[in-house]
Amino acid sequence: MQDMVRVAVDAMGGDNAPDEIIKGVAEAVSLREDIKVFLVGKEELIQEKLRAYSYREGQIEIVNATEVIEMAEPPVVAIRKKKDSSIVVALKMVKEGKADAFVSAGSSGAVLAGGQLLVGRIKGVERPPLAPLIPTRKGVSLLIDCGANVDARSSHLVQFAKMGSIYMEHVVGVKKPRVAIVNIGAEEEKGNALVKETFPLLKECKDIHFIGSIEARDIPAGAADVIVCEAFVGNVILKLYEGMASVLVGEIKKGMMTSLRSKMGALLVKPALKETLKSFDASQYGGAPLLGLNGLVVKTHGSSKAQEVKNSIIQCVTFKEQQINDKIRENIIREEG
Amino acid sequence: MQDMVRVAVDAMGGDNAPDEIIKGVAEAVSLREDIKVFLVGKEELIQEKLRAYSYREGQIEIVNATEVIEMAEPPVVAIRKKKDSSIVVALKMVKEGKADAFVSAGSSGAVLAGGQLLVGRIKGVERPPLAPLIPTRKGVSLLIDCGANVDARSSHLVQFAKMGSIYMEHVVGVKKPRVAIVNIGAEEEKGNALVKETFPLLKECKDIHFIGSIEARDIPAGAADVIVCEAFVGNVILKLYEGMASVLVGEIKKGMMTSLRSKMGALLVKPALKETLKSFDASQYGGAPLLGLNGLVVKTHGSSKAQEVKNSIIQCVTFKEQQINDKIRENIIREEG
Repeated sequence: MQDMVRVAVDAMGGDNAPDEIIKGVAEAVSLREDIKVFLVGKEELIQEKLRAYSYREGQIEIVNATEVIEMAEPPVVAIRKKKDSSIVVALKMVKEGKADAFVSAGSSGAVLAGGQLLVGRIKGVERPPLAPLIPTRKGVSLLIDCGANVDARSSHLVQFAKMGSIYMEHVVGVKKPRVAIVNIGAEEEKGNALVKETFPLLKECKDIHFIGSIEARDIPAGAADVIVCEAFVGNVILKLYEGMASVLVGEIKKGMMTSLRSKMGALLVKPALKETLKSFDASQYGGAPLLGLNGLVVKTHGSSKAQEVKNSIIQCVTFKEQQINDKIRENIIREEG
Repeated sequence: MQDMVRVAVDAMGGDNAPDEIIKGVAEAVSLREDIKVFLVGKEELIQEKLRAYSYREGQIEIVNATEVIEMAEPPVVAIRKKKDSSIVVALKMVKEGKADAFVSAGSSGAVLAGGQLLVGRIKGVERPPLAPLIPTRKGVSLLIDCGANVDARSSHLVQFAKMGSIYMEHVVGVKKPRVAIVNIGAEEEKGNALVKETFPLLKECKDIHFIGSIEARDIPAGAADVIVCEAFVGNVILKLYEGMASVLVGEIKKGMMTSLRSKMGALLVKPALKETLKSFDASQYGGAPLLGLNGLVVKTHGSSKAQEVKNSIIQCVTFKEQQINDKIRENIIREEG
């Protein structure tokens, strides 16, 4: 038990809960013996659904939580009022050291607010950023921050750059990750007040490989590994990514159905097309970690299916094995000392 | 001559100048007899290139300008120093009423700075926004502002919404255009300080059809006609649009070349695919107007070819015919009075 990675999973969160969540959990524990999952939510419901799967004794444990935080609820209020919700119960397990990590496809707002309020930040971390991996032509890049921290300051962005570098290097396995700040031009004097203030600070940072500004145009091409921006801009990038991919793919499919000739062609290219689009599907890469907390909190898409849940749980293992939080702690303290 | 729309065109700006610019000009004047173009730039060079085209007497006139502002020059400095550059000479023609409009594929910064410094703003307009049309599943939307006005205030955004509505209704022909503000969630209480301050002001506006927040995800689907945001966010959206389209299309093409089967299919779907992608090609829609100036300034892509130049010139005709600046003037004055 000592070397197990203990992951609390929100059985009630997301569009496909609890079925896909439970399926993902079953798949994760069947892959690795060193994972222990706490399925947090309505006990009877989970018990019933879990009967469909077989798994090693002791790898899955149900933790009862009678309430559910809905997507539309104001996050901070919900966290304070619904003390017996799956999100609050699971986050408290992380806080108390009963779990190493928490994975949820539920309300982003509640997971972000709860992560900060209940689990708490690593000493020295000013704001915990939400950092999803986004697909690019070259693989993936870490987009940091896409969280609830709007109106950020330059010192926050510098910490995002450091935490993002550590994550990309040790969890994703990119050596000497290239860090860039989102800007509206490549020159140093360009940008808004925040970017102009942050740019020289990033340039001075010794423990990151800062390559300068990145224009949004170059993000999908994979021009940087760690893409630093404040949360509003990050959210726009993330959402536009999803929207563009879905509309373009839809239009291309529709276009192929316009003539008999193209319909025949569509049949032939379908498998190859599917493969290509899969590489641009964010769910391949698990969820987005909320970095800088005393424990790991991972937010997966609201529309997550079993595969994304499974990948998010596996991600927690790497995070613990690589002692990411110790590395963040060291890095932040070294900087402050 | 009285009813001619007089357009000064920067013969020296953009990656494909002067050849594609001159070609676009020749095409525009062959389409409509009521356009008079001043081709501004190095006289001898233009004269020589122009020989390849035939056009009605008096529809094209060369205006000599011996200097060229390069892409990399700091805009404000360049505008002040290069008094005989094509951009400065052409903008002064607009200022002095010798031309109604200016079209350039040259340095965005110089066109934006020059437009403000040399042509001047309509009385009451706080900041002139750059407003490109972006392709969506339903047609096009106006993204306002993508200009150089970073760190905008809420009053600027309200004016952007009004000017954008007028443009979409009278130039593009969208009745009662739906206006939305870019946000990180649909609820009114979401957003950064700027959005939270602007939202209620837009709600109060009687002369626009405000439909609330828009998440970046819904932009490509065409969920609003006028998309209001400050310039940094607008620039990110515009550039990511271009980047995503180019990378996704590239990956899809590459994917189709992976097997014999898919290669055969690719041959069959190619014409249909080309048609689909054309509808997502921004150059179809002419350039981006810089609104709120005493005259019209249109910035086209640096990579513009003849078609975009031609469309941008035609756009100037509609702009003048529809008396857009009078409408903006009335609207801004009514609001202030």
